[in-house]
Order: sequence, then C-alpha cells, then structure tokens
Amino acid sequence: MVRVTVWNEFRHERESDVVAEVYPDGIHAVVADAVAEAGHDIRTATLDEGPDHGLTESVLDDTDVLLWWGHAAHDEVRDEVVERVHDRVLDGTGFIALHSAHYSKIFKRLMGTSCSLKWREAAERERLWVVEPGHPIADGLGEYVELPETEMYGERFDVPAPDTLVFSSWFEGGEIFRSGCCYRRGSGNVFYFRPGHETYPIYHDEAVQQVLRNAVEWAAPGDGPDPAFGNADPIEEIDTDDDRTVH
Amino acid sequence: MVRVTVWNEFRHERESDVVAEVYPDGIHAVVADAVAEAGHDIRTATLDEGPDHGLTESVLDDTDVLLWWGHAAHDEVRDEVVERVHDRVLDGTGFIALHSAHYSKIFKRLMGTSCSLKWREAAERERLWVVEPGHPIADGLGEYVELPETEMYGERFDVPAPDTLVFSSWFEGGEIFRSGCCYRRGSGNVFYFRPGHETYPIYHDEAVQQVLRNAVEWAAPGDGPDPAFGNADPIEEIDTDDDRTVH
Amino acid sequence: MVRVTVWNEFRHERESDVVAEVYPDGIHAVVADAVAEAGHDIRTATLDEGPDHGLTESVLDDTDVLLWWGHAAHDEVRDEVVERVHDRVLDGTGFIALHSAHYSKIFKRLMGTSCSLKWREAAERERLWVVEPGHPIADGLGEYVELPETEMYGERFDVPAPDTLVFSSWFEGGEIFRSGCCYRRGSGNVFYFRPGHETYPIYHDEAVQQVLRNAVEWAAPGDGPDPAFGNADPIEEIDTDDDRTVH
Amino acid sequence: MVRVTVWNEFRHERESDVVAEVYPDGIHAVVADAVAEAGHDIRTATLDEGPDHGLTESVLDDTDVLLWWGHAAHDEVRDEVVERVHDRVLDGTGFIALHSAHYSKIFKRLMGTSCSLKWREAAERERLWVVEPGHPIADGLGEYVELPETEMYGERFDVPAPDTLVFSSWFEGGEIFRSGCCYRRGSGNVFYFRPGHETYPIYHDEAVQQVLRNAVEWAAPGDGPDPAFGNADPIEEIDTDDDRTVH
Repeated sequence: MVRVTVWNEFRHERESDVVAEVYPDGIHAVVADAVAEAGHDIRTATLDEGPDHGLTESVLDDTDVLLWWGHAAHDEVRDEVVERVHDRVLDGTGFIALHSAHYSKIFKRLMGTSCSLKWREAAERERLWVVEPGHPIADGLGEYVELPETEMYGERFDVPAPDTLVFSSWFEGGEIFRSGCCYRRGSGNVFYFRPGHETYPIYHDEAVQQVLRNAVEWAAPGDGPDPAFGNADPIEEIDTDDDRTVH
Repeated sequence: MVRVTVWNEFRHERESDVVAEVYPDGIHAVVADAVAEAGHDIRTATLDEGPDHGLTESVLDDTDVLLWWGHAAHDEVRDEVVERVHDRVLDGTGFIALHSAHYSKIFKRLMGTSCSLKWREAAERERLWVVEPGHPIADGLGEYVELPETEMYGERFDVPAPDTLVFSSWFEGGEIFRSGCCYRRGSGNVFYFRPGHETYPIYHDEAVQQVLRNAVEWAAPGDGPDPAFGNADPIEEIDTDDDRTVH
Repeated sequence: MVRVTVWNEFRHERESDVVAEVYPDGIHAVVADAVAEAGHDIRTATLDEGPDHGLTESVLDDTDVLLWWGHAAHDEVRDEVVERVHDRVLDGTGFIALHSAHYSKIFKRLMGTSCSLKWREAAERERLWVVEPGHPIADGLGEYVELPETEMYGERFDVPAPDTLVFSSWFEGGEIFRSGCCYRRGSGNVFYFRPGHETYPIYHDEAVQQVLRNAVEWAAPGDGPDPAFGNADPIEEIDTDDDRTVH
Repeated sequence: MVRVTVWNEFRHERESDVVAEVYPDGIHAVVADAVAEAGHDIRTATLDEGPDHGLTESVLDDTDVLLWWGHAAHDEVRDEVVERVHDRVLDGTGFIALHSAHYSKIFKRLMGTSCSLKWREAAERERLWVVEPGHPIADGLGEYVELPETEMYGERFDVPAPDTLVFSSWFEGGEIFRSGCCYRRGSGNVFYFRPGHETYPIYHDEAVQQVLRNAVEWAAPGDGPDPAFGNADPIEEIDTDDDRTVH
C-alpha cells in the first residue's frame, strides 16, 4: 500500500461550468478515486487550503507519492512550499506531474529547463504509443491508448531527455510528443504524463486511470541507502596531513 | 574557432598565499591559456567585475562556451545573472562546470538537484578512468589521467544520471566519483569536470588541459532549429472549432 | 512470487578443491538459497544437464527470471539454446548475468559488443558504491558494499552505456568498474552484477545476497503489451493505393 | 575530411523499373553525392562486388564512417563480413544504418535485439520532428522534415533505448516512430536513420541529405584511448600472491 497525495489547483472546476460538468468534485477527486482502486491510501490537497496549499510537513511526512495538477495559478504556489516538495522528492518521495503541470514551479525546478512546448485546444485525437512495452508503467495496456478529444502538446518539449521514454503521442493535427517520461531526481522517481486537459474527460478514461495506478506503484520510494554528504574520513588508510586546505 | 569565456570567482588567489603561488594570475588565466592553445577566441570574467560579474548581455552575446569556476562565494552571484546565463544555456551556449562549481547556483539550477557530494582535502591520488573511449572529450588521452594530489569528491553525487558518463574516478582513500558528466539542457551542452582544487596545480596538468580543450569543442553550439513554443496552428487539416477552451 | 531459474556452468566446483570448499553443492545452490529467502519459486539448471543444458522450452515456460553464472565453458553452450534464451528475454523474461557471465554467449548476444574488460586475481578489496540510492536494486543496502577478497574487473568494460548505473566499484589495485548495470532488451530487464569469483565466498555475503534478491524482483516481467510486428493497416483513414511497392 | 564508404545492396535498382527510375545509378550513388558535398572522401561498395561484398580489410582500413542500405538480401551478406564490420565499429568506425537496414545482420548484431517494427507501403506523409535541437545531427534543419510519400515504420521498434533520440516521426496513418537514434557501441558511433524507401525519392530530398552529412560528421571516429583488455597488473602497490586462482 502506497500513501498517495493528489494535489490539484482546483480553480477551473469552481470557475468554469464547462469544467465543472466534467469534474464536479474537482480533478483531484477523479484522480484519487482512480488510484484508490489499487488499494492505496489516498488523500487530496488543493491550492486554496491555507498558506501551505495543503502540503504541510506533516502531510508530506505521510506521503510516498505526490501527484500534481495545476494550470492557471502556478505562480500562486508559494516558493517555500515548492522548496519543501523539492526536498522531499530528492529524499525519495515519488512525484507525478500531470498535463499542464509541465509548467508548475516544482516540475520546472526538478527539470532545470523551461519545460516549454507547443499547444492547441482543438479537441483533436491523440494516440499514445507504448514505446517501452517492458516498462511497469505500461502494465495492462494495449499497444496504444487512444483519446478522442485532447488538447495538443507538441515538440519541442524543453525537458532533459528522459531516463526512460514510455509513451510517445501522435496528434491529428500533425505533431508528436514525448508524453510519458521517467526521471530520477535525488532518490525520487519522477513521471511526467501528458494527457489531462480540464475540458475533456481524460481522467475518466480507463486506460489513463491504469497508467496513473501503474505510475504510483513505479514512483513509490524504496529502502535504499540515505547518502551522507559533506566532509568524509578516508576508508582506506592514507596520510591526511595537508596544511594547504582553504575550505 | 569557438568564442570562449572563462569565468572565475577569483577570491582564493587574492586572499591565500598558498593558492596565489599555484595560480598567481588566477585560475581563469591558466584555464584560458590552456583553451587558447586550440586557437579559440578567449576572454575571462570574474565575480568582482561589477554587478554583472563580467557577464553582461553583450559578453554573453559573444560567448559560445562558458567555463565556470567558483567555490567560496557562490551566494554572491546575483540571481539575475544566474537566470541570464541559464537562459543562454537553454538557447545553446555551452556550459562547463569545473570542480567546486558543482555547488554554483547556475549548475544547481541546470541540474534541478542538490549537487551534494562527499569531500576531503588530503592531497590524495586520483585516477580518472575513461569509461567511454569513443567520446570526443576523451580525444588524445590515455586510458586514465592520474593526478598525484587532489581534493577527494566521493559518491553519492546528487545529480541526475548523466546523458553520457565519460570519466569515473578512483581515489586513494577508497571512494569513486562520476567525474566527467555530459548533459544537454535546452539546446545547450553541459559538461561537469571534477578536478580543479585551488591548492593543487591541477589546471597546469597537460592531460587536464587536453580535457578542457576537448570539452570546449564538444560543448560549442551547433546550428539546429530554434524551437517555437506556445500556441500552434495545426499542420494537418483538422477541425479547430472547440468552444470549451479555458486557456 | 517470481519463478526463478539459476543456471550455473558447474564445472569449477567439481574439478577444483579450492572452489569445492567454498561451494560444495555448486554456486547455483548458494545463489538459489539466497533468492529463495524472498519466497520465490526457485529451480536450478546446469551445463551438463543434457543437450539443452537444463534449459528446455518447458523450463523456460516456467521461468520469469533467469540468473546465469559461467566462466570456463562458455563455448560449450549450444547456439540453439543461446537463441532460445535470447528470444525469451526479448519476450520479457528477466536476465541476470553474474560476474564472469560478462563473457557468456547470451550476454554478448544481448549487448552487441565484445564485453571485454581488464581482470586480475589477487584477492584484493572491492568496494561497490551505490550511485543510484533510489533504485530498487539498492534496497536495504548501505552506501557501499565492501568485499575483502575479490577478483578485480577494470574499465574499459566494453558494453553499451547502461540504461541505469546502480553500482560502481573501487579496487585496491587502482581500478574502477561499472559493476551494477541495468538494461532493457526487447521487453526483458537485464542486470549485470560484477562480484562472484568462484574462489572467494562472494555469494555467501549477506549484502550480495540482498542485491540478488532485489535484482530478481526488479527483473521480473510485467504485464505490458505484446507488440505486433510486420505489415500494419492504417489506423487513420488514408489512401493505401500505391502500385510502386516492391516488398 | 572524413573517409566515407557507402554500402548498398544494389538489387532493387537493377531488378525493378520503378526503383531504377528513382535511382538509375543505385541508391549508393545518390547518397554518396549527397555526402560528398561536404568535401568528404567517398567510395561505394555493393553486395555483388565479390565475396567480401566490396568490404575487404583494405577498404575498411580506409573507412572512417560506413553507411549501409539493404533490404531484400540481408541473408546474402556473409557472416564473416558481418563480424569484420562489427569489429571495426567496436574499434571506432562510425556506422549509419539507413531505413530497411534496421533488419540487416550487422545492425541486429550491434543492437542485440530483433529490430522488428510495423511497416506499410502506402506513399503516406511523414513528418520527422527534431526532439533534440541542440544535437549536431539537427544542424541546419527546421523544426521538422516533411516527406510527402514514405513507407511507414511504426512502433514498437524493438531496439535498445537510444543513447540520444534526435528525431521522432509522425505518420498520416496514425503511427509514430523513433526515426533518428544515436548509439555508441565499443568506440564506434552508430546512427539509425529511418527514411529511405527505394520506391520514393527520399535521398533526393535536401533536408534528408543534410541529415546524412551531419550524421557522417557526428559518427566520425575521434582519437580516444585504445583500451587494453585482459590480465592487468595493479597500478597501486598491493600483494598479488593468491594461490587460489583457477583462471
């Protein structure tokens, strides 16, 4: 059982009738239900839940994997919370960035690049091809996942080359996109998953839900060593006298 | 011919007799001379050269590859200059981080991780093994580069797994280290090269100088496409009417 | 529960008193016991078990992960069996190459390179540093695994750069080695793990046994799509008339 | 100046009027002319040029980069020649596999996988998107290369994940493909480039020719160390007495 926190900006759903119709209880509710089917321990948090946006140290203490959806209010996420989440990921907390979270402060912080891309809202068809069928995030899927109506994201996607590319998307309008990207940052597993625009019922799709569950299991932290950093005594016997140090 | 700027913190050399003896004109002078041997166009810049630390937009306009040495005053580099250099790297400027620049603001910004490591100043022996003999940064080298006296850096080095690992180091005291790491960030080539402590004559070493020249040529920008980001018209004919947009 | 087959050449143990003292029932017996501790379903197979070397189609049907130890008789493994195992790995069977199996036909077949390296038998000290503490193969370990007496393997190790480098070794005699290397070939997970020379009690070491168990879990196949290859009908409606075909 | 050998099966052009019309002097002639524009030293070789298929030791001695086009007669390439070329690549000769050479003996030998894929001959539109604009193989290109009529190759492409993915293709019929893949095998640089079906004038396309020239420069060998393999004396002083050896 993985302890999962689903974080959502939760603004569109309260401000737009179109979005509210697709996600009446918020995108986080649908994502949480999808992940909960695998028997994990789920909680949610949203931007407007106080100064910590629901992500207090205590909540993060109880979080193995954090999913993140944001779009219009990235700038309202306080830098202190971004650094807090960043520290947790380096320490091993899994992080899953969903769709427009490519532009969230925390994802850009983890990538070190602009995370820019091309986009278009035309309710067009997307086909996510599995390019690594042996990867656990592809468990239970067919050769591709087809979504009838999506917002297009197109290359160039300005991210570091992923450690593993699991999905690559075809779009009706002529673009392609690296749409399922695995990274390790510190001891934390990071997964970017492209689909998820708020005006389309993407997170209601069964295959998309399967990917979310797979990604949570893949991103969950293990029990590896906790590295020691800083000044270190030698392990082998050596002469450590050196009066030239300026550290 | 590559237009190279060698940036140096240039404090130790002015404050410590031990360091001044090794680098009387500054580390940047020795690095610049080493790179200039390949016929490149070299300039230098240092922390205390005004509010831009010598890295004005104009200097960066004339820079294809930027080498960076810093150690004790990382925090004094203004964030605005860090962002300026970061933008340039994403746009294609090559960036070579030397030794203690692992902890510079700009390198941490590009990596997205803590860039922490183990260290020890004991004038111990280091042997940098070439693990990718076919990589251009290994041109002209033997199977390893041996340095008689170095500061030790040991794993865990908290960086993303490099796109290519060129060198891995053996230390007398029992540690190993990924000491030559290639990354691409945006369109820019980034190389981290470990040796270079200020109290040892590392940059006077002929093999180290060869690596610097190789790295400059490898990191120099090409003539690839300049990606367009943002809203994009479809290339194929599709129906673009969709009144659900909330962008 | 993973269905594991431990394959061993099983010659040294029957021909050398020195080796028989360390592994009286064969290396495979000790490796099998170590992996069985995790509750997996274990069987063993050896070179001299008939023309299939114990690796019939039926045995492979019941194998999720295959561990391989060989050294002096690589050439006696029949090519037909090598191809059979190769097909299985591409189809998803996990494969773990142990120590001198770097030179086995099947590992070289999977890598596509010579898999050559430097070696020395001097009972010297090895320290395997964990360079990716967040990787599941490092679960339950400290920052390094120290082995008091090992055969040295040194770089250049002529393999493709691993998808993930988990361990890198320090040797007393001055070399380093990429000693824990993850690959994906087809749908199969492949792990190379360096320690294991027959004259030293390497597989009796508790940390080494932990790595074996971790590697088995990591290498176990998932439930991803089974790709279709060959001629394919279009998914989108296009004109497929083209009389120029020469296929 | 790079010494380039363009190898071609050269059967379709002599047996099919359709192909002969596109490539009257053979595919190799057009590829050779395209590469020669960069001032390189070019020769060609074909399957039916004697038992070595034109690839004698002497020709390979004078070859820095070898381009390979084959389709219908992969099996007629003698294994001895395949091993000869394989040895050369590991020693540093660059290798560029074109289109249907994905199924050549030498490419499969280098990859260690089946290299299978989906295909369709329907003269459909392909758009190769540059996903790494900073890579030298993308020099001089726009954001994508569009080819009006191509044979489709679709994922899953059963190759190891490339060290660098430069191009990813969109196809009219709904598929995507990793169409520009960089690998290093031994000291040799290997590039797979997808377009090139014999019935379409692909190698007459200016952007495709630019990629060929770029790939030749990228794949050209450097001057790195020539690794020594086998038994090695220690570099550090250690006790090398160990009477347990069974090597």
